Amino acid sequence: METVRLRLDIAYDGTAFSGWSKQPGLRTVQEVIEDAIATLVRHPDLEVRLVVAGRTDAGVHATGQVAHIDLTEQQWRAIAAARRGATTEASLTRRLNGIIAATAKDVVISRVTVAPEGFDARFSPLWRRYEYRIADATSGHDPRRRAHTLWHPSALDEAAMDAAARSLRGLHDFAAFCKPREGATTVRTLLDYEWTRDAEGVLIATVRADAFCHSMVRALVGAAVAVGLGKLEHDELTRILDAAVKANAFPVVAAKGLTLVEVAYPPDAELGARAELTRARREPVGRASDPSD
Amino acid sequence: METVRLRLDIAYDGTAFSGWSKQPGLRTVQEVIEDAIATLVRHPDLEVRLVVAGRTDAGVHATGQVAHIDLTEQQWRAIAAARRGATTEASLTRRLNGIIAATAKDVVISRVTVAPEGFDARFSPLWRRYEYRIADATSGHDPRRRAHTLWHPSALDEAAMDAAARSLRGLHDFAAFCKPREGATTVRTLLDYEWTRDAEGVLIATVRADAFCHSMVRALVGAAVAVGLGKLEHDELTRILDAAVKANAFPVVAAKGLTLVEVAYPPDAELGARAELTRARREPVGRASDPSD
Repeated sequence: METVRLRLDIAYDGTAFSGWSKQPGLRTVQEVIEDAIATLVRHPDLEVRLVVAGRTDAGVHATGQVAHIDLTEQQWRAIAAARRGATTEASLTRRLNGIIAATAKDVVISRVTVAPEGFDARFSPLWRRYEYRIADATSGHDPRRRAHTLWHPSALDEAAMDAAARSLRGLHDFAAFCKPREGATTVRTLLDYEWTRDAEGVLIATVRADAFCHSMVRALVGAAVAVGLGKLEHDELTRILDAAVKANAFPVVAAKGLTLVEVAYPPDAELGARAELTRARREPVGRASDPSD
Repeated sequence: METVRLRLDIAYDGTAFSGWSKQPGLRTVQEVIEDAIATLVRHPDLEVRLVVAGRTDAGVHATGQVAHIDLTEQQWRAIAAARRGATTEASLTRRLNGIIAATAKDVVISRVTVAPEGFDARFSPLWRRYEYRIADATSGHDPRRRAHTLWHPSALDEAAMDAAARSLRGLHDFAAFCKPREGATTVRTLLDYEWTRDAEGVLIATVRADAFCHSMVRALVGAAVAVGLGKLEHDELTRILDAAVKANAFPVVAAKGLTLVEVAYPPDAELGARAELTRARREPVGRASDPSD
């Protein structure tokens, strides 16, 4: 049967969620959106399943999350019927947000589009970009943004953090920064990692990679904070990376400061090839082995 | 008796507050901070009274609020005694935040300083600056920032809003934008009023004046929104301003989008003279007549 694949661009405040992935008895972003889609297609009991670019942990936020969902012809017709056939992407987005807003204020669907041929939210991405926010002793502490900013009591040396961050870029085995998981590769390309201060003096990390292993961004940030405090020397950090075993020289920082801000896809013509390439690379270990992408 | 005047720079998320000003049975910013200071000076039942630059309404936020408080010698000594005399401004700030954080997560004291001679948080300011945030149909809707951003369902014409805003600048009788209050002047100098979009496309109003009458910023924003929707013509807005009577051609917008971001004071040597000038100008009507400054 013919199916219609929709791409959803999604933003959420992760504070009140037990992460993206559906779990029995817990409030998750996936469940809120899947329930809304089931309502939209007028089959509240129908199974609809979202496939996501980044399975964020509990407390992690997103402004640029991407997911896809396959609708059967019957489901797609149910949506169209409700509007006498006049289903535009804009009206779909509006209707889905209307359903969600009735029960959840912390999720927004930025856009619904019919996905181009070959598009796979999880396997087609070129890279994911995260941001981590830290207000330290030298910056303003804005209570309006406290749920998505880590407040650090002392001052951090951002030049040292930025230098350390940049030194970690490139293709490496990031096992030192990954929660170990049998059979899963920890080799990643860290395309970007830098620290700056914004206009309010808040430290902002930009972390961009083809994909991330579990808790990798928060470990990379924890390492930089240790450097910023003078507790970890730059060359020690290099040795930790090279050793490629889970390190305990620095803590994994809190989820609240972390936001998935962008997922980048190749041009439409290359979507299918990219997905196949990613799948081939991860095939031996299966999907369960790579939870956070 | 000699008193010590302290200046407090304050930030708060206004969402869970019934505004700044103490009111029986309601949670207010003033009460949270006054209670914390009473604890700090070890006289929990002692009357301490904060004087503030901008008496913000329920739901309005602040990142740059300023207040002062006068401590008696006895109170000041009580603070010093707790630290064996080593009372620095930094340690005072830390201790006050520690007391507040035990019960409130939505207020931060950015800094406590001993105020210079002649300083008056309410009467010395040269100007107050507010910011108003609107996410419209053409901008991103960031759920992390939903408690301090107005979400407007349709697209707003920011060029028209900016032009209208700029035309309101200058010394005028702003009665059209003020909740009337007997005996209170509505003549103000609007030093700045402009609309821009930030990196996420969110509309940001900057509104700066020597002082504001009650609900003035939210009426100025409401007028601009009406212009941005094409519901109010630019020249009609000019006529409304000139008429100088409370207008109903536009609504007062929601408090949640509004933040007091800065209060500017003159150089120390001019603080006293500035306060006297302001007091003389407002004296005939008394303090109760001018609630939002």
